[in-house]
Amino acid sequence: MSFKSKIKTIEWKDNCSKMIDQTLLPYEFKTVDIKTSEEMYKAIKNMIIRGAPAIGIAGAHGVALASMELSKNITNRDEFLKELQKKSDYIKSSRPTAVNLMWAVNKQMDLAKKTQGSVYDIVNAVIENGILLENEDIKINKTMGDFGAEVVPKGATILTHCNAGALATVGYGTALGVIRSAYAKDPTIKVFADETRPRQQGARLTTWELTQDGIPTTLITDGMCSYFMSKGMIDLVIVGADRIAANGDTANKIGTFTVAIAAKYHNIPFYIAAPLSTIDTSINSGNEIPIEERSHEEVTHINGDWICAKDVNIINPGFDVTPNELITGIITEKGILRPNFKDSIKNLKI
Amino acid sequence: MSFKSKIKTIEWKDNCSKMIDQTLLPYEFKTVDIKTSEEMYKAIKNMIIRGAPAIGIAGAHGVALASMELSKNITNRDEFLKELQKKSDYIKSSRPTAVNLMWAVNKQMDLAKKTQGSVYDIVNAVIENGILLENEDIKINKTMGDFGAEVVPKGATILTHCNAGALATVGYGTALGVIRSAYAKDPTIKVFADETRPRQQGARLTTWELTQDGIPTTLITDGMCSYFMSKGMIDLVIVGADRIAANGDTANKIGTFTVAIAAKYHNIPFYIAAPLSTIDTSINSGNEIPIEERSHEEVTHINGDWICAKDVNIINPGFDVTPNELITGIITEKGILRPNFKDSIKNLKI
Repeated sequence: MSFKSKIKTIEWKDNCSKMIDQTLLPYEFKTVDIKTSEEMYKAIKNMIIRGAPAIGIAGAHGVALASMELSKNITNRDEFLKELQKKSDYIKSSRPTAVNLMWAVNKQMDLAKKTQGSVYDIVNAVIENGILLENEDIKINKTMGDFGAEVVPKGATILTHCNAGALATVGYGTALGVIRSAYAKDPTIKVFADETRPRQQGARLTTWELTQDGIPTTLITDGMCSYFMSKGMIDLVIVGADRIAANGDTANKIGTFTVAIAAKYHNIPFYIAAPLSTIDTSINSGNEIPIEERSHEEVTHINGDWICAKDVNIINPGFDVTPNELITGIITEKGILRPNFKDSIKNLKI
Repeated sequence: MSFKSKIKTIEWKDNCSKMIDQTLLPYEFKTVDIKTSEEMYKAIKNMIIRGAPAIGIAGAHGVALASMELSKNITNRDEFLKELQKKSDYIKSSRPTAVNLMWAVNKQMDLAKKTQGSVYDIVNAVIENGILLENEDIKINKTMGDFGAEVVPKGATILTHCNAGALATVGYGTALGVIRSAYAKDPTIKVFADETRPRQQGARLTTWELTQDGIPTTLITDGMCSYFMSKGMIDLVIVGADRIAANGDTANKIGTFTVAIAAKYHNIPFYIAAPLSTIDTSINSGNEIPIEERSHEEVTHINGDWICAKDVNIINPGFDVTPNELITGIITEKGILRPNFKDSIKNLKI
């Protein structure tokens, strides 16, 4: 049973990629039209759009925009494909950790190469495929939601970290998609949202999108999870993922690993919700996942103001890796994977 | 070997209590003169002064101020003591979790009752005792620092949470006192400071006071600890305490419990540094420690700006309790207590 969300994060329309500017939330709701591949690179890098599945779709749209740009000056198919590959690689370099970006851009490039006919045929093919991937994303989320809702006990309080919601996807969500589907079945469930410093996606985005959809949400700071777990006030944890290795180790927003350890200590189930496109079977373990180092200002400033002494050192990893031993299950559009994850992922034959 | 800190947090001078206004740090350094017991109540409640040992001294000064006020109109000794008790109870009600406040105010009241002679003799006695407790606090911190420095390996990186520093005491620190003493012996040690949302005492106070004293400090957000622990970048954790039960369970700033669980998972030593006045042998376990619920704005606002959706729920416990099983040792002015803490605390005979 799926829930009707009001949010459409990214949409191909009038030959451009329309997206909600997430840097303005929760203060202002505004959509922007991304018209060039360069603009798309910046939109991803500066987190106007963010969330692994959403930046996958943004990447696919980016390749469509790049193909439109190139087709204005290049009619030779081989030259076109060579230049399109360069622009695709550029788009992929905008953020290194989420594998969905690589997955979607590679899908577009594979299609471009396979498409017979002229440059214009390729342009049309990648535009259509961008729209197809966009629509598929919502379908996949809803299927995941249905599978995931099964593990949510009646009246449960679910803790989530960062934003793996409608805003991290095309419009339904992975972790928050499971929550939406669970809420459609049982409106007594409740959500605790971690603030998720440094970028505060939990405070800025998750509380915004869940309260927009009328789902009861309590904001907590990142250190509080153990307190509420020890008081029996959190029944399970569901988070998204940016990349899952072949053994189930999962990269997600910094702080996820800490929540997973706290959940284990309190014997609380800890679930990942992610589409198969997040699983990177080319890497054996989480040690091989590149961790993006982000701007120091994300830590030292909030809303443009300093929050600390000026001569302090900063290290700002954007993600951490939760080892498979802390994960109860991985909710996908093909069902819920259970340990041992190496085997359950291998059995997917992706 | 003790380190010379530049910071004097609270000082009895010219018949008033001079203190650093910690709500303005790290932006502005300003001292305020607290001239009445009512002003002292507000200074503690609004966290102009904070940190368990520092609010103990503030409480002692508060009783001195109260005695000066009452002596203007009351000359009858019994009536004076009755009114002083009322004002003392009022001061103690400013913050419920830290036991040092109760300890210091009770010490003053006991002294007042024991002091022979006139109301003026009592006033002089509690003023003198306030100054004595103030001076003792620094001595106690330095003794603790010397004991604690022994457990810091050469070149170690120490994670701390909140501010258990010069700013949380009269002028040297408990957890940061240990760090100062360790740094005096070995200037290759380094500090990681948790931001400590919601009030950001780590970002605002700890980075300020450590960089003032030239100790290399890296600010991290509260969720990051597990990432750095897993990379071998944190060698031990030292934090302060607001109240320690007879079995060693320790109430400290919210988020401490989460850090302790992460340290246990990574086999990293986790130490509490606190004077004996923080140990409350009247309670058997952490379950009996009252946890202060603080203003919701501390979570929803930073520097006066909203950071989340407006119709979100908030629960804001100021403290959590770290169970004794996660604590490697408790560093006191009488040496380092080791498990089993029930026995090691009993052996102190306090």
